[in-house]
Amino acid sequence: MTTIKVGVVGASGETGSSIVNGLLEAGNFEIIALTRPTSISKPFNLALASRGIIIREQDLSATSDPASLIPAISDLTIIISSIAPLDQAAQIPLATAAKAAGIKRFIPCAYVPVMPAGGTHILRDLKEQVYNHIKTLRLPFTIVDVGWWYQLSIPKLPSGRTDEFLLMGKSEIAGDGNVSSALTDLRDIGKYVARLAMDERAENRYVLVYNEMWTQNEVYKLVEKESGEQIERNYVSKEELEERVASVPEGSLDVTTLSVKAPAQYMLSWGVKGDNTPEYAKYLGYVTSKELYPEMEFNGFEAFVKEVLKGEAPTIYEELKKQFAAAQK
Amino acid sequence: MTTIKVGVVGASGETGSSIVNGLLEAGNFEIIALTRPTSISKPFNLALASRGIIIREQDLSATSDPASLIPAISDLTIIISSIAPLDQAAQIPLATAAKAAGIKRFIPCAYVPVMPAGGTHILRDLKEQVYNHIKTLRLPFTIVDVGWWYQLSIPKLPSGRTDEFLLMGKSEIAGDGNVSSALTDLRDIGKYVARLAMDERAENRYVLVYNEMWTQNEVYKLVEKESGEQIERNYVSKEELEERVASVPEGSLDVTTLSVKAPAQYMLSWGVKGDNTPEYAKYLGYVTSKELYPEMEFNGFEAFVKEVLKGEAPTIYEELKKQFAAAQK
Repeated sequence: MTTIKVGVVGASGETGSSIVNGLLEAGNFEIIALTRPTSISKPFNLALASRGIIIREQDLSATSDPASLIPAISDLTIIISSIAPLDQAAQIPLATAAKAAGIKRFIPCAYVPVMPAGGTHILRDLKEQVYNHIKTLRLPFTIVDVGWWYQLSIPKLPSGRTDEFLLMGKSEIAGDGNVSSALTDLRDIGKYVARLAMDERAENRYVLVYNEMWTQNEVYKLVEKESGEQIERNYVSKEELEERVASVPEGSLDVTTLSVKAPAQYMLSWGVKGDNTPEYAKYLGYVTSKELYPEMEFNGFEAFVKEVLKGEAPTIYEELKKQFAAAQK
Repeated sequence: MTTIKVGVVGASGETGSSIVNGLLEAGNFEIIALTRPTSISKPFNLALASRGIIIREQDLSATSDPASLIPAISDLTIIISSIAPLDQAAQIPLATAAKAAGIKRFIPCAYVPVMPAGGTHILRDLKEQVYNHIKTLRLPFTIVDVGWWYQLSIPKLPSGRTDEFLLMGKSEIAGDGNVSSALTDLRDIGKYVARLAMDERAENRYVLVYNEMWTQNEVYKLVEKESGEQIERNYVSKEELEERVASVPEGSLDVTTLSVKAPAQYMLSWGVKGDNTPEYAKYLGYVTSKELYPEMEFNGFEAFVKEVLKGEAPTIYEELKKQFAAAQK
């Protein structure tokens, strides 16, 4: 098997970690983590290095000079980016450099549920600017959306044993809870990305990768059955969600954007409008993982719920939970 | 043959006229021209009526209440819009109404060369807002881009016999003149649109329809050969075109946008970058008319040049030429 050099931006993030794992598991990639000079000796990067990943120093921001980025990527074939939601613009000089360096596939930071551009979601719209720049450059790309994570779909139990999966300390049901949405185990994302990165059918395409379709009401019933606990339903209406969105000033990009506006916009999109489905993805021109990899094995949602209830599922977003808790005080 | 009710917005424009002709020629459409109340008895609309087209009064602007538009479109199956470059936003309430009215295919006002969104061209970006709105609504659509018109590709001859085809009174060559660009006879556009409107393969797709690929240098040589005249070459560099773009204040939408910025951005896109090609269209996810209708007959560019030199080709944009001439004074 030929080894392909792939650069990963944001390897320390939730999605980035899944991607690194998926690439390692695939076995045919030489992985280079592009890392801020200040992060180079952080425990996370030392752990990556111990797993055979090359840690390469490269500062990256929206104001980086593209020419300065070329040396750090000129030996790479593929770049996979997964950076913080509000840092998307840092990919603009990176994409320019990638074009100049002859990168064969650029996988920008998508990894959200299926949503249209143009006002549905602030984070989707920040990504759109990057996608437009990539297309203007004619850089070969794959845009990978992933549905909604299993890890963000678990309701609060009276016993508290799912609390580690509650980003905001509570769980809510969008609308009437009967809207189907594509769910994916965060840990499977990297497996999909590792395949897509080498798949010609995914070149210059939007791809939805997902495991299973669930409504929130179905999820709550499943978790009640598996836990033996009664779960309180906090239904949040479309109007209430729209009020939350309106409560954050237009154009603001701060912690309230991430903790108030973004969650409400997500719930409106996947929970009320029902955007996060393979049908809507196909309407928007996506191909789905079910079409590309019908045989692929993935973790089922029921198995995940059992893992969570046994306390065996890794938790997520430790840092972000602290930030959100601080912002709520 | 079943008759399909199709509403045409902007039937009096250059592209709209071609579309009406194409629909009439196809023979299976009942055509309803949605027309401003103030235009209802203009000669153009009387001429349409005499050809069997139903003239239906409907005012339309960016601030129209969508509910007020539904009665005028509720009996239609298809809506084809072709409105003035700076009036694109009027399609936003129209699309909302079209969704509510159950319109089966909405063909918004595209009809430009292949260009990416996001800063390449002011007129393309105005359309992007409409496309995003359509997608947010999940309205079935076809976006039809048409390359660059034959009618705008004819150089100025010393004899003056092509002057009627010079929108700005002169002819210029973008860059070195060696960039291939997809050219289409304005009169063929309607034939393509009439097919696409009923073609399931075009549902929710971007389509590039075009006749032939030509560079400007090839066009000049052809016209010299056919006319027997020597043509002066006015090469305009990338830098000069960029200066023209920069000379129009960001965000302005007026006659200088149409007469200075838009032409310079078009020349940069199709003449310098080479965006207006089937290859780039496919990269952007388009299907092309050559794939959909390989057998379709169209007017060749050489035949068009002969028509022009004989004085037999209909001229274009009579009103706009006057506006531009006035603005240049």
